[in-house]
Amino acid sequence: MKLDSDNALARLAAHDHGVLCTLHAERGVDAVPVAYAIDEYGYVGVPLDTVKPKVSTRLQRQRNLENDPRATLLGEQWDRDDWSQLWWVRAELRWQGNDPDRERSLGAQLAERYPQYQDQPFSRILVFNIVGVTGWAAGGSQPAHR
Amino acid sequence: MKLDSDNALARLAAHDHGVLCTLHAERGVDAVPVAYAIDEYGYVGVPLDTVKPKVSTRLQRQRNLENDPRATLLGEQWDRDDWSQLWWVRAELRWQGNDPDRERSLGAQLAERYPQYQDQPFSRILVFNIVGVTGWAAGGSQPAHR
Repeated sequence: MKLDSDNALARLAAHDHGVLCTLHAERGVDAVPVAYAIDEYGYVGVPLDTVKPKVSTRLQRQRNLENDPRATLLGEQWDRDDWSQLWWVRAELRWQGNDPDRERSLGAQLAERYPQYQDQPFSRILVFNIVGVTGWAAGGSQPAHR
Repeated sequence: MKLDSDNALARLAAHDHGVLCTLHAERGVDAVPVAYAIDEYGYVGVPLDTVKPKVSTRLQRQRNLENDPRATLLGEQWDRDDWSQLWWVRAELRWQGNDPDRERSLGAQLAERYPQYQDQPFSRILVFNIVGVTGWAAGGSQPAHR
């Protein structure tokens, strides 16, 4: 059921994508699927890339973070037929603003994690630190092997 | 790229699960995977069920909504290998408070949509109306067939 934070963080770090939630003053929550990498210091890098076509170069998620640095990353596994396979991990994040060194190291990690990013087609990388992790699994607390 | 709202809503209504985001005064965003149903009037029902084991019977998402009725539902399709298959739809929601008639009709719809819910094992159903829909697809604007 409830995952301890080490198990939860390990699942999130190994998972292939998540939902990044930021705060919009009127709408409340903006949520969008993202690729990400988590480094060994507990920093999360979310690329603003040029692979997936975007409507605008300066994204709403970035404007939201400039107004409120709180964000949430949810990674989850769904299984339509077997709900004993469900799990989710939610990381509470704080946007770090500009951090060129960490953007560089997380960029390299993203290029390793995703073949689509092997040439590092990033306009920038949003860097967050993790201030809390919560997780839940339907089928117990074994680490996920995907 | 950008989906028109009819296409976006049709994809969300047909999709099998989403991420429900609510607002927490200190943490910012709480996000959790959910099953849901959308009726023909544009109402969304999210069950608090007794199938997936929960830590507590009165969930944080409900407390959040009592403090702030704004919520967001994101449905998305990921494909690890082929990013031309990616799409997402985000619905901006308002919690409606108690609405027993609509809870009943959405409960019946949930039971049709999910075999796990055929006996309607709901402690309650959160009812939202949709105040806005945004969507994006990497590969154009054809409806999803899943």
